[in-house]
Amino acid sequence: MSDKQKKPQKLKARLPRGFVDRSAADIHATNEMTAKIREVYERYGFDPVETPLFEYTDALGKFLPDSDRPNEGVFSLQDDDDQWMSLRYDLTAPLARHVAENFNEIQLPFRTYRAGYVFRNEKPGPGRFRQFMQFDADTVGAPGVQADAEMCMMMADTMEALGIKRGDYVIRVNNRKVLDGVMEAIGLGGDDKAGQRLNVLRAIDKLDKFGTEGVKLLLGPGRKDESGDFTKGAGLGEEQIEKVLFFVGIKDYAQSADQLAALVAGTAKGAEGVDELNAIRAMAMGAGYEADRIKIDPSVVRGLEYYTGPVFEAELLFDVTNEKGEKVVFGSVGGGGRYDGLVSRFMGQPVPATGFSIGVSRLMTALKNLGKLGQDEVIAPVLVTVMDGDVESMGRYQRFTQELRAAGIRAEMYQGNWKKFGNQLKYADRRGCPIAIIQGGDERAQGVVQIKDLIEGKRLSGEIEDNASWREARVAQETIGEAELVAKVKEILEAQAEDRRRAR
Amino acid sequence: MSDKQKKPQKLKARLPRGFVDRSAADIHATNEMTAKIREVYERYGFDPVETPLFEYTDALGKFLPDSDRPNEGVFSLQDDDDQWMSLRYDLTAPLARHVAENFNEIQLPFRTYRAGYVFRNEKPGPGRFRQFMQFDADTVGAPGVQADAEMCMMMADTMEALGIKRGDYVIRVNNRKVLDGVMEAIGLGGDDKAGQRLNVLRAIDKLDKFGTEGVKLLLGPGRKDESGDFTKGAGLGEEQIEKVLFFVGIKDYAQSADQLAALVAGTAKGAEGVDELNAIRAMAMGAGYEADRIKIDPSVVRGLEYYTGPVFEAELLFDVTNEKGEKVVFGSVGGGGRYDGLVSRFMGQPVPATGFSIGVSRLMTALKNLGKLGQDEVIAPVLVTVMDGDVESMGRYQRFTQELRAAGIRAEMYQGNWKKFGNQLKYADRRGCPIAIIQGGDERAQGVVQIKDLIEGKRLSGEIEDNASWREARVAQETIGEAELVAKVKEILEAQAEDRRRAR
Repeated sequence: MSDKQKKPQKLKARLPRGFVDRSAADIHATNEMTAKIREVYERYGFDPVETPLFEYTDALGKFLPDSDRPNEGVFSLQDDDDQWMSLRYDLTAPLARHVAENFNEIQLPFRTYRAGYVFRNEKPGPGRFRQFMQFDADTVGAPGVQADAEMCMMMADTMEALGIKRGDYVIRVNNRKVLDGVMEAIGLGGDDKAGQRLNVLRAIDKLDKFGTEGVKLLLGPGRKDESGDFTKGAGLGEEQIEKVLFFVGIKDYAQSADQLAALVAGTAKGAEGVDELNAIRAMAMGAGYEADRIKIDPSVVRGLEYYTGPVFEAELLFDVTNEKGEKVVFGSVGGGGRYDGLVSRFMGQPVPATGFSIGVSRLMTALKNLGKLGQDEVIAPVLVTVMDGDVESMGRYQRFTQELRAAGIRAEMYQGNWKKFGNQLKYADRRGCPIAIIQGGDERAQGVVQIKDLIEGKRLSGEIEDNASWREARVAQETIGEAELVAKVKEILEAQAEDRRRAR
Repeated sequence: MSDKQKKPQKLKARLPRGFVDRSAADIHATNEMTAKIREVYERYGFDPVETPLFEYTDALGKFLPDSDRPNEGVFSLQDDDDQWMSLRYDLTAPLARHVAENFNEIQLPFRTYRAGYVFRNEKPGPGRFRQFMQFDADTVGAPGVQADAEMCMMMADTMEALGIKRGDYVIRVNNRKVLDGVMEAIGLGGDDKAGQRLNVLRAIDKLDKFGTEGVKLLLGPGRKDESGDFTKGAGLGEEQIEKVLFFVGIKDYAQSADQLAALVAGTAKGAEGVDELNAIRAMAMGAGYEADRIKIDPSVVRGLEYYTGPVFEAELLFDVTNEKGEKVVFGSVGGGGRYDGLVSRFMGQPVPATGFSIGVSRLMTALKNLGKLGQDEVIAPVLVTVMDGDVESMGRYQRFTQELRAAGIRAEMYQGNWKKFGNQLKYADRRGCPIAIIQGGDERAQGVVQIKDLIEGKRLSGEIEDNASWREARVAQETIGEAELVAKVKEILEAQAEDRRRAR
């Protein structure tokens, strides 16, 4: 059919750059984690809604992660009717499209959540993938900061539902309006200063990375890093820098609230923002969430430009060891904020909204660090081995297997080349099978099967000193009547489970 | 930034052609269904593995749904290093790549399953989407038909786990080798006849649609449909057609087995295929799966060309009414077969494999028809209404809400514009909230709340004759102390649940 395109003899099997396959352990852990998150969100009255992976590129619009490069950073292709489509790069822009498109049917306020893959067309790097999962919750049509306060409480509850202890996480809250007020107060208000404002925001966002001294340079003349690379600064004067640093350096909001209010006094936005922060704080505390869980923290910036009011970040506070061997705070596992403009750009009316997004794989890394995932480990199947390859014997092995499965026990019949029996036991070992069932001709004649406790076998082999004696060692093995098979397997599995419990 | 591209004032919110948003009900139903499938697969010893949505286009290769149009039918784009990537169109080709790429680490036989979206770049039509979900199970490295037999048993068990009664489904089994044998027997063997063979396969595949007479025409000179469109036939002679029709018309395999064996006698592949069918049948019956569950049926073809041995199809046998108002058998919800060549094209060695794929949304439609989904309906949240908008009151409403949630009750505080109280009750009604909590200034002073049983209210309103009296009707409402809130809500929810149970 396609003679002109001669293919190479052997095709190379390779993952596309920046993409990964996911293992069973990873999938189980994700399912366990997302189920817990979902449970909290449902309890808060949120319902799932899902959008497809494609959107028309214009619907994603300028709300790209970095507006310096519109339409860059996404995977796009042209449909056969010439319209450009892109794979979604987050779950917020598609939700905005969904709400606008179904505005007459949707009952506002609309509380929804969704987990799904998003795509970034970027240079992949270590731990930086081009497809990854986000888990979002949003309330659309909620004008008041009580909705933002609730978002923060829900995130705090989510952290605890995942087993993260109080004190090991904090939900940090800031407000874009306060930031805008500070900007205005230092003379950076107005549309013509948008570029400089963005540079200031980016500088602030580097506080964790470069510390106060580094940010000072980035706010001022610029900063040279260890490799000698120079990053141009925002060009602020000393007094301006001081005010910005005071603002982002606020550690105890209650103590600094008056000073902050004074700083932004006279700017309309700033005063509004401070009021909103105070309201969020009061409502959170009214519901029992003190600053150890929900903390006003003016250093929170959030990169996305579409935020219009409160912004939040869920931060994990425990230490981990980074790739350089240094102890560092684990840091952010998600964030969000109010985006009043994202839906309304499709509409003739304002549609206020607030949301929160969790980075699933980053949170999972954190939970693994804490040993909070994989408790309900999946047990490998019981292996029914194959001694004889005739159809009648195969049918019998299959029947044993089905009997075990019917009793709710994970079980499988060996499906490889059965002629090398050693391979079957090697398979059972590498797969971590707890039990092997064996029936050859002699056993068949007597209506019995052999049942090998492979975990007991391993334990015994651990007590044996060298490889040679290991191979000769008799593993725990019993001969039982065919009719006792299910009961005996259950008994051994239960004994193994008891061993695991004791070993903890 | 991009002044030259002036955007229209208002952007149109629209889904890309052929894609859909998914509702909460749909997502809950899918989760319920896939959880049950997963449980069966896990019990059979299968573990999840997931691949990304992109593959290099050459890795998908010629194994497209229709090899007449290689690289058509998929969504493709060129990466910045000039390599072509495509969104996967099924879950089998990516699994083959995964196994080949990780061949040294994977313990064969490798039993895996996965649910995920696949993409077809085709003209969308009614019920035909460009993104849909498949749920696959595969055993790679399993040379014997015992693995195919097991696949069929697992599918039968899956149907029953989903609540489909025995007799309402059947797993039909055929074998490509027998088909090849029949082809050879009628003189269509050999590479040069590949095109004609494909036309014969396609004709057979239309048996359900056009009946024996229609297929006869497609096998012979060709067929004109009602609109006058002519489809060219495979050009077989009368005797050839007769043999093909005998083969695909076999209703009772046991009765026709000898005649079939005679038909393919002398063709190496045909005899092998018949042996394999007999072995599958014997093994299935040995494990208690009679022909009412797993049925040898030579009319099963399966469109994909990569199958090399047994092929299967899960068919639902109950009647549904189609869009023309006719009663028709529901039909196929999934299928699969042996694909011994799909992994080995990456390798220097043969890698036998067999698998099964379920069309998730089609199966879900079937289950909805049977009333087998949505039993564990999600109850809408209790609504805590907002009477006063000051921060202190908001904090109090939020606290009520949190107390309910802490007791495991779905609850939400109203997040819309609270000033129009009528809108809050309208919201509760449209959302289906079971209970509303109300506290104004008077109640606050007394430390009480009003609790409205909205379901009881609806029931009462059903007994009232016109709209006017409905509006005036007093709905079931009580005043209780703040401290009793959680207990009282639990009590009402339990009474409502009891009502639902009785109503069934």
